[in-house]
Amino acid sequence: MKAQDYPPPVRELIARLKRMPGVGTRGAERHALWFLQHGRADARALAAALMAAADEVTPCPRCGFFASNGELCTACSDPARDNSLLCVVEQPTDVLPIERCGTFRGLYHCLGGKISALDNVLPEDLAVAQLLERVRELPGCEVILAISSDVEGEVTALYLAEQLAVLDCRVTRLAQGMPAGAGLSQADAITLTRAFEGRKGI
Amino acid sequence: MKAQDYPPPVRELIARLKRMPGVGTRGAERHALWFLQHGRADARALAAALMAAADEVTPCPRCGFFASNGELCTACSDPARDNSLLCVVEQPTDVLPIERCGTFRGLYHCLGGKISALDNVLPEDLAVAQLLERVRELPGCEVILAISSDVEGEVTALYLAEQLAVLDCRVTRLAQGMPAGAGLSQADAITLTRAFEGRKGI
Repeated sequence: MKAQDYPPPVRELIARLKRMPGVGTRGAERHALWFLQHGRADARALAAALMAAADEVTPCPRCGFFASNGELCTACSDPARDNSLLCVVEQPTDVLPIERCGTFRGLYHCLGGKISALDNVLPEDLAVAQLLERVRELPGCEVILAISSDVEGEVTALYLAEQLAVLDCRVTRLAQGMPAGAGLSQADAITLTRAFEGRKGI
Repeated sequence: MKAQDYPPPVRELIARLKRMPGVGTRGAERHALWFLQHGRADARALAAALMAAADEVTPCPRCGFFASNGELCTACSDPARDNSLLCVVEQPTDVLPIERCGTFRGLYHCLGGKISALDNVLPEDLAVAQLLERVRELPGCEVILAISSDVEGEVTALYLAEQLAVLDCRVTRLAQGMPAGAGLSQADAITLTRAFEGRKGI
């Protein structure tokens, strides 16, 4: 005489919700019961949105950012963008914070990761060849490396700088230094060292 | 020249995920990007589970607990259950904690809420008539009121006790007292008063 549990469709829904990052057993159960008790229309709408996203969202064939149905992304298809500026990021998700700050009006290139001996990611696994091809087609452009400043990021940036050195372009990196609004007491030694190195006249 | 944003299917997915209780803008974005970057198969599976749950999960026609496709729930369809014990709960979600503790082997009745002047919930809005009908069909049974002990719960319990008084049944309530493992310092005055009232010889 087994203790009663939810019927199979509810158990399946809980199991599926639990696979989402940061959602545990209790959270998944709470979400599932909410859908059953208050949100059947929401459940159908979320199901449709998931299917549409899984089917329609494709990487931009030029830069790798999110786009729809195999088309170019909104940046690559915008003629008003400055195509002498190419910002190289690791992931398509890195594009949004840059877009939201609103100062950069050039184009992007998503590598799809960074070189990592530990995770066995080689330059061939990243969109490096495509980057070099784009730079060849944009002579005189500036390539801004907006890659994270951890060890793998540094390795990736150095590798890209080496590859780009033979091409007609200028290679820059995002400035490193104190985060805006932060006090000296919160800064680690490396950040502080780089902030000293990069100091500017006022 | 609008700043770039996610393509429409991603924005729609974020908006849909945000409607879930306890999921904010950042969390919805994180989930959506996870589905796009690592979990397209998961997205399709969750979509299917949501549709199945929305379509197939129905209230048990006898007790109101979750069941599939209009059938009786697992408790009502289990001949080994003691049908002289009827446990009245507010919501179908209240059944699971009772089932999980494993001591109760009778049947359930889900009211669908509690009487509340503030929320304009009247006895007619709850499954009270169905409860009285079931008790009439189970002469000599015990009706255990497992309703919350707040003001609305007390009102509902008193109302049900009054309605059930004329029928051939015994009406009981869950014991009130100290929670297991709790010290005196955590107990509020009402809980402590009820623990004194309900004291037992050892």
